[in-house]
Amino acid sequence: MIDKVHLHEQEHGKNDSLYGVSQNTIRALEVALEDEEEKKVKKLLQPLHAADVAVVIEYLAPHLRHNLIEILRFRFDPDILTHLNETVREEVVEQIGTREIAEAIIGLESNEAVALIEDLEEDQQKEILDSIPIGERVILEEVLTYPEDSAARLMQREIICVPSFWTVAETLKYLTEEKELPDKFYDLFIVDPKHTPIGEVSLSSLLRELPTTKILDIMRVDIKRIPVLMDQEEVALLFRKYGLVSAPVVDEGGRIVGMITVDDVVDVIEEEAEEDIMLLSRVTESDFYEPLLSTSYSRIRWLMISLVNTLLAVTVISQFQSTIEKMVALAVLMPINAAMSGNAGMQVVTVAVRAIATRELGGANMNRAIWKEILVGLINGIVFGGVMGAIAAFWFADPALGIVLGGALIFNMIWAAFWGITFPILINKMGMDPALSAGPLLTTTTDLVGFATFLGLAWYFLV
Amino acid sequence: MIDKVHLHEQEHGKNDSLYGVSQNTIRALEVALEDEEEKKVKKLLQPLHAADVAVVIEYLAPHLRHNLIEILRFRFDPDILTHLNETVREEVVEQIGTREIAEAIIGLESNEAVALIEDLEEDQQKEILDSIPIGERVILEEVLTYPEDSAARLMQREIICVPSFWTVAETLKYLTEEKELPDKFYDLFIVDPKHTPIGEVSLSSLLRELPTTKILDIMRVDIKRIPVLMDQEEVALLFRKYGLVSAPVVDEGGRIVGMITVDDVVDVIEEEAEEDIMLLSRVTESDFYEPLLSTSYSRIRWLMISLVNTLLAVTVISQFQSTIEKMVALAVLMPINAAMSGNAGMQVVTVAVRAIATRELGGANMNRAIWKEILVGLINGIVFGGVMGAIAAFWFADPALGIVLGGALIFNMIWAAFWGITFPILINKMGMDPALSAGPLLTTTTDLVGFATFLGLAWYFLV
Repeated sequence: MIDKVHLHEQEHGKNDSLYGVSQNTIRALEVALEDEEEKKVKKLLQPLHAADVAVVIEYLAPHLRHNLIEILRFRFDPDILTHLNETVREEVVEQIGTREIAEAIIGLESNEAVALIEDLEEDQQKEILDSIPIGERVILEEVLTYPEDSAARLMQREIICVPSFWTVAETLKYLTEEKELPDKFYDLFIVDPKHTPIGEVSLSSLLRELPTTKILDIMRVDIKRIPVLMDQEEVALLFRKYGLVSAPVVDEGGRIVGMITVDDVVDVIEEEAEEDIMLLSRVTESDFYEPLLSTSYSRIRWLMISLVNTLLAVTVISQFQSTIEKMVALAVLMPINAAMSGNAGMQVVTVAVRAIATRELGGANMNRAIWKEILVGLINGIVFGGVMGAIAAFWFADPALGIVLGGALIFNMIWAAFWGITFPILINKMGMDPALSAGPLLTTTTDLVGFATFLGLAWYFLV
Repeated sequence: MIDKVHLHEQEHGKNDSLYGVSQNTIRALEVALEDEEEKKVKKLLQPLHAADVAVVIEYLAPHLRHNLIEILRFRFDPDILTHLNETVREEVVEQIGTREIAEAIIGLESNEAVALIEDLEEDQQKEILDSIPIGERVILEEVLTYPEDSAARLMQREIICVPSFWTVAETLKYLTEEKELPDKFYDLFIVDPKHTPIGEVSLSSLLRELPTTKILDIMRVDIKRIPVLMDQEEVALLFRKYGLVSAPVVDEGGRIVGMITVDDVVDVIEEEAEEDIMLLSRVTESDFYEPLLSTSYSRIRWLMISLVNTLLAVTVISQFQSTIEKMVALAVLMPINAAMSGNAGMQVVTVAVRAIATRELGGANMNRAIWKEILVGLINGIVFGGVMGAIAAFWFADPALGIVLGGALIFNMIWAAFWGITFPILINKMGMDPALSAGPLLTTTTDLVGFATFLGLAWYFLV
């Protein structure tokens, strides 16, 4: 073991070694794979953590990746699969074959096996489950009946429960002698005879107590019980808010059925934030490793929203062709109103979407938040309406044109602010994800109203 | 303790109680605060977790918040401060007074005290430090000399180190008898005589070993040592990638100086993702609780970028006034090119910014990623150029106009794709945060080039 560490540190630069895989290693691997030198490849991979092997697999060009998988295919380490990005993982499963993957998966803990299987395509899922022995399969299939993104999918079945009348010494003895313990655990759960969790004792506090102390006297009772059906986003919020390390999962009857640990929640937090980022910019997640054509297809689907949006906007503009013909300055100035209020509105949408996601916005503070945004919109409207109006007035030596642009901007900034916060709230109330549709709705309305107010006011007052 | 739980569950609905504070409680509190019924307020708050009291404080209208702080000001629980949003926290510190806050802070662990102090304004920081006894102050001031967002700021000083020649029994005895242990810990660090960490043993595995086993034989040696100066984003990536629960922090000489635990990393992950979300939409973080005028000010600062961007775009359009005058259809169609390619480019920017943040993009796969984006841009350009060109051609019964719009769109989609991925890479290479400036740079270039190519081609071929 010690030798391995040394080898490891010799091969990589200082900071590089923290990530376990250096550019040099990758380059050496690429050469070895190109030449199909199986022994050299295995030697280079041997000191690497499964997470780093996954990085290498993702990093390689498709034909080298294929060669590498061929070399690794016998006794394939399932931990590598858990670290792979979805797109690449499907490719690897395809290449290795579902029967072999199924054999590898049996070695994983239940929640890791579920995490692997749930992301695969349905036919792959079915094939793998069919190759798993009945005992394991039943557990996996039961978990898979729970909705995706529910607490049930995150939890592991392996937990430690003790009765409250035990002493510290009895508990320690149980922990030493029991063979079927989870790989890692941080809290013991105290249950009543009906298997309802009534308290928690952390390992670190257990060790500091006297052997004769009763568990009842040292357990924390203000514990958070997670319903199996709770959404994973809610689970992550609970862990973050209360600084939890592990928490019991309970079924509808309140009985303990598993536990969720913080390391699984870390991934959820990242996933959920990532989802919001991607949706706000209208891209599909895990886009980076997708092949060319499916990337292009998913981008085009999202851009259809912009297409409709843009076509609506130009339809509005086309109503004012004769006005523009008489005063071409309008064509020059008309993008200002839509662009400025669109950007201002997207600021509001982003703040509102995140505030809803983190439960800061909702309920009693809603009216106050809406009014605040309207006032911010008014102030910003006055500032930018004033600046842009003045610029337009001087540029085209036409004060009336400046007043029309400024007035339109003030109105549309307030409009953008109001809908920027109201759309997310309404969409959330309808039970949908505001990150998905609040942005497109907002830009459509600010574009339409932006062009319509500016050109409409110009038609009425100027032409 | 048991009584507290019952009280708690009586007061709230089932799901509500998970978050510890229901709408009913808040409403009851608002009434009690309005009437300044101190006893009733205290009774309502008594069963709540510090994190929930923080929620209540953030939730309340300013005058009620003021009343509540007045009631809580004596023996103020510093845990509440750690859960408060930055804006509200400064307000609370202001109201309570730095001397009283300093007294409360002494009770916290070093990393929590640092987290509190570092976010405050500089004069508040200084005042609080001055009120802390010299012993504690020196530790805090030393940590504060390390850069913000460094591992040093995240770590706690309280750690457990044991030599490798100890047995399991000796180690357990030490843990039981030693008084100065950290509140919570999950791993023991094994150090050599120079205090260099050489291995780790998790608490859960320690308990399962025989008393006579040597620590040397059970410790994991492939541990991740975190340099004090490592950026917190890197720390979070390490924890996530390798599924760490705690990790030793080492100084430049490789000696252990503290540890970072996963619950602190959870907040970092959320923070860093949040930062990217906010920057991509050009809003300042923690915007939600900021007072009206400073929100408006920070939004205006970001919108100045849009202002410059928009003014540049209209300057380009103004060069083509006579062209537009001759053919007003151009005014109608010109937003299409800029809008479509701007949106397509922002998709690329978002994917690239996140891929850089999670270390998926960089180094060897860069050229491949750039080429992929260019090809996606080409495909999308052909699709949308074709659709939009056809629409324009039929609408204005002018095939040449359709060809000009389609050609301009194809060119600008490729342009947007290329810069959408190249800007983030370049900005990252210059050591700056791509989330901050890649978006504005991209929209500016797609706007300018979008209007210029469409109107320029029209001027050359059509008018």
